[in-house]
Amino acid sequence: MTTYSTKQWFVKERSGDHLDIDKTFELVTKELSVDDLKEGQVLAKAFLFSNDPAQRTWVNKDSTEGRLYRPASNPLSPFQTSYISHNNHLIPFFSIKQPINNGEPMEAYGIAEVVESKNAEYKKGDLVLGGVFWAEYFVLAPESIMFKVPCDAVDTLTLGLTGLTAYFGLLTVGAATPQDSTVVVSVAAGSTGSIVCQIAKNILGIKNVVGITGSDAKCEILKKDCGCDYALNYRSPTFKQDFEEATKDDIDVYFDNVGGEISDLAIVRMKEFGRVVVSGAISIYDDMGYGGKVSAGISREAWMQVICHKIRIEGFIVLQFADQFLKGLTDLNTWFAEGKIKLIKQVWEAEIGDVPKGMLKLLNGENTGKLITKVVHS
Amino acid sequence: MTTYSTKQWFVKERSGDHLDIDKTFELVTKELSVDDLKEGQVLAKAFLFSNDPAQRTWVNKDSTEGRLYRPASNPLSPFQTSYISHNNHLIPFFSIKQPINNGEPMEAYGIAEVVESKNAEYKKGDLVLGGVFWAEYFVLAPESIMFKVPCDAVDTLTLGLTGLTAYFGLLTVGAATPQDSTVVVSVAAGSTGSIVCQIAKNILGIKNVVGITGSDAKCEILKKDCGCDYALNYRSPTFKQDFEEATKDDIDVYFDNVGGEISDLAIVRMKEFGRVVVSGAISIYDDMGYGGKVSAGISREAWMQVICHKIRIEGFIVLQFADQFLKGLTDLNTWFAEGKIKLIKQVWEAEIGDVPKGMLKLLNGENTGKLITKVVHS
Repeated sequence: MTTYSTKQWFVKERSGDHLDIDKTFELVTKELSVDDLKEGQVLAKAFLFSNDPAQRTWVNKDSTEGRLYRPASNPLSPFQTSYISHNNHLIPFFSIKQPINNGEPMEAYGIAEVVESKNAEYKKGDLVLGGVFWAEYFVLAPESIMFKVPCDAVDTLTLGLTGLTAYFGLLTVGAATPQDSTVVVSVAAGSTGSIVCQIAKNILGIKNVVGITGSDAKCEILKKDCGCDYALNYRSPTFKQDFEEATKDDIDVYFDNVGGEISDLAIVRMKEFGRVVVSGAISIYDDMGYGGKVSAGISREAWMQVICHKIRIEGFIVLQFADQFLKGLTDLNTWFAEGKIKLIKQVWEAEIGDVPKGMLKLLNGENTGKLITKVVHS
Repeated sequence: MTTYSTKQWFVKERSGDHLDIDKTFELVTKELSVDDLKEGQVLAKAFLFSNDPAQRTWVNKDSTEGRLYRPASNPLSPFQTSYISHNNHLIPFFSIKQPINNGEPMEAYGIAEVVESKNAEYKKGDLVLGGVFWAEYFVLAPESIMFKVPCDAVDTLTLGLTGLTAYFGLLTVGAATPQDSTVVVSVAAGSTGSIVCQIAKNILGIKNVVGITGSDAKCEILKKDCGCDYALNYRSPTFKQDFEEATKDDIDVYFDNVGGEISDLAIVRMKEFGRVVVSGAISIYDDMGYGGKVSAGISREAWMQVICHKIRIEGFIVLQFADQFLKGLTDLNTWFAEGKIKLIKQVWEAEIGDVPKGMLKLLNGENTGKLITKVVHS
């Protein structure tokens, strides 16, 4: 009987504001027996974990039960979900609305190597992308595997859901077109933002692409690699003036990854019929202030502008466009191959015990581009 | 030479929070000479003034220059605007973005009686609806007259822009359909809200129409005359529980006339892909708190829901649908004639010196339905 000894992260106690890794997660050693593998399942070895801000919300203590959107990335997770068919694969869809509960395994998107297989489609050595667990080894049901990795694994993970988020957020939700003249992107040097900027500049030909980020070094990358006409450091003492200068002709589309005060600044600069695409809100994921009903940072002046300038604010989650993923991936791959989109990415190597630190890196804005954890096996 | 002596309200000093009529407006006596009337103009006698919450924003001291939407209702006002053609009349449109400045005449929508005419289309005695001034007598250019009043003047003013605001807000911006099951309306006993409720219940057949208002007496009207399944008094100590009970199946469309805390409550109860129609924000017009960048009352929890539940929040101003007014008015008139929509209205009589008090009545929620000032001439 072959067994795999694995360390796996579980949620010990869902977190309030200001994530404390030790209090929130715990590492448990388990034995996985190949004999327990069911027909269709594979046993896989962790290779890459995607770090996504949304993961922080899955372990938020105070998320309202039934109102948190969390796709069950793995049918072996305790929650049942529904699936839609895409490209001969089932993609987990809308129905899960609960945080990960205490005692349940932590989830992530990632790429893993098949080491044992009871599925004819996946053989030993294949790299597969899907919904996985923070563990060295784990069992994947076929529904949680989206596809076999066709080329470079890091690029695949970078261009995958993240690229699609940029693509559908800007083009469908934001309805950006070449007729727009100013597109503003927050968390612009992040995984999604860096692709949004490039689609805006290199595909749509937007005249004025404004990226907001948190350091001068990232500003350089925005200008050099992401096609930004203005790259603004929100930590700069002149940020507000810089923002006004960069948006002096007002904003057609604001792609919001941050929430809070920066979103407020943008809303009062929207054009008539401007579109605010609410893709994420990393500034508030770790600081919800539930106890005191803390403001989202949206001022009365901004709310007035929603009326006066007929602004549309719209939230989305990329999985709602799953039936159009094939077109999105085809376009993104073409643009990537043509050199119109560069993948801004950062891979850090971590033993399983350090994996949760990736979440802190994201929350602190330490990453540039897509942050990927490469699991080092001891 | 015939002259008309008239008292007319001017903006003395644009108001900060908490409107003070004496400090904001001043009544000036003027002489209007018929000899000064230009070709195409009419001299008209005030009959009815529409009281609209938006008027409060036109005289806000701290409105950002260039970002306040105010249609120039009268081309004799100091601002130029652009016009679109509708039903053989030009309707003032988008270009004015300035508050009414100190020293300029106060404006309103209203109905007036033609007393002198240099326009073949309008003869003495005609009642005309359009953009007028807070004055006993005033000169109207042809562009500021929308149409001759075809039937009862009070009904025309009630069903006019107010009815159209309800119509386009609910059906176009809110995209409400008979498939929706819960529609929530704030300021539901107001001019727009009372019609929104009736369209939702009597035209669309929405199963659960929830109206929010500020007194038990108005709750009775909502249930008796406006088709509300739930009528909630936001001043009740049990309001939050009442709201949760009334929206237990979550909200498809929230028609927002109030802003602030009530909007926040609604946003966290929206369904996936729910629509928040931002028609007005009467709770903040008189309390913008510009000095301290006061919150719009939107909490972090609500902003998170915008993402998690893919909510669309969209502001609008009815004039953006001017090219479809004919269809809207035709539908509204049909529903009115068939008894499917009742006009909830309140006419108060005022000498010219008391006209500004109508604004306070609105801000204090003293009105039920459309508040119309009938001008008493001494």
